[in-house]
Amino acid sequence: MNSFLNLIQQRQSDRKYTERPVEQDKLENCLEAARLAPSASNSQPWTFVVINENPLLNEVARATTGPLKSFNNFVVQAPVIIALVMEKPKLLTEWGGHVKKKEYPLIDIGIAAEHLCLQAAEEGLGSCMLGWFDEQKVKDLLAVPEEKNIPLLVTLGYTPEKYKHRKKIRKSLNQIVRYNGYGK
Amino acid sequence: MNSFLNLIQQRQSDRKYTERPVEQDKLENCLEAARLAPSASNSQPWTFVVINENPLLNEVARATTGPLKSFNNFVVQAPVIIALVMEKPKLLTEWGGHVKKKEYPLIDIGIAAEHLCLQAAEEGLGSCMLGWFDEQKVKDLLAVPEEKNIPLLVTLGYTPEKYKHRKKIRKSLNQIVRYNGYGK
Repeated sequence: MNSFLNLIQQRQSDRKYTERPVEQDKLENCLEAARLAPSASNSQPWTFVVINENPLLNEVARATTGPLKSFNNFVVQAPVIIALVMEKPKLLTEWGGHVKKKEYPLIDIGIAAEHLCLQAAEEGLGSCMLGWFDEQKVKDLLAVPEEKNIPLLVTLGYTPEKYKHRKKIRKSLNQIVRYNGYGK
Repeated sequence: MNSFLNLIQQRQSDRKYTERPVEQDKLENCLEAARLAPSASNSQPWTFVVINENPLLNEVARATTGPLKSFNNFVVQAPVIIALVMEKPKLLTEWGGHVKKKEYPLIDIGIAAEHLCLQAAEEGLGSCMLGWFDEQKVKDLLAVPEEKNIPLLVTLGYTPEKYKHRKKIRKSLNQIVRYNGYGK
């Protein structure tokens, strides 16, 4: 009964990859999991741009490193990077988002990205979500229209055995759960 | 190998519930799955307020119905509603969010909510994420501090057999996947 809790334990932010390429069928299973993700009003406000060819792969990887050379410098090792492009939701959702001051598609993008990463774990692949990168640079490299955003990149690849199964550090249930009121 | 893809198929937005209460151990497994969700810089910017007592449950349910009486009127059937309160992320993440104009915690909240719903499916429970509700009313009912937001509510309960296994309607992979460039 607890296979999903086990899968959650297997997924981690993998920042080391071997040179083994990602098989096309495994990649497609990851995309299939993301495709089936729920979204507000079933808007599916996303396009997944798979980057797996050089020199593009290298150029996108370089757009994720920060002013500190060590930041995100693992990305160049990843044989696949997927850019999650946020698309406009349905009109009703867009209107609802304005009224409720909530950017629903950002919630949806998070859900789809996690489906992708959990399926990667199921396939024995490592993955890492990246939120910090030069978005304009990546948009230019992928020819993404100016008005669209790329909230996340996800790296995929095989993680060396010794870097797997890192212990998860999380707050306890007591710290994050209340019953029948915020203050209780 | 495809148990996660199967689990994804089982999860759906359930808008009918039986009177069967949700067992505490199942509820806690759902919360555990959410607790283990990844988040930007591992900020874990969330508090889960479980509502399972009347009259509060009824009052929160009433805050989700819209001007049209039929909208969200299933929520009163749910024996459990969980409010996802968005907490401040770590300072570095907050600063990064400002610089990159991205509300990372909203992405994180989506991920945690989906962990919750997928574990519900694993437990044989139905669930539904709600983004449209009277947030101020729910904040008042739960005594959530004014400066905090509640991006999502999630209902939990048992779905009548005949409402399970609805076919998923999604765009095809061809419509949402491109390789090595947005235009390709």
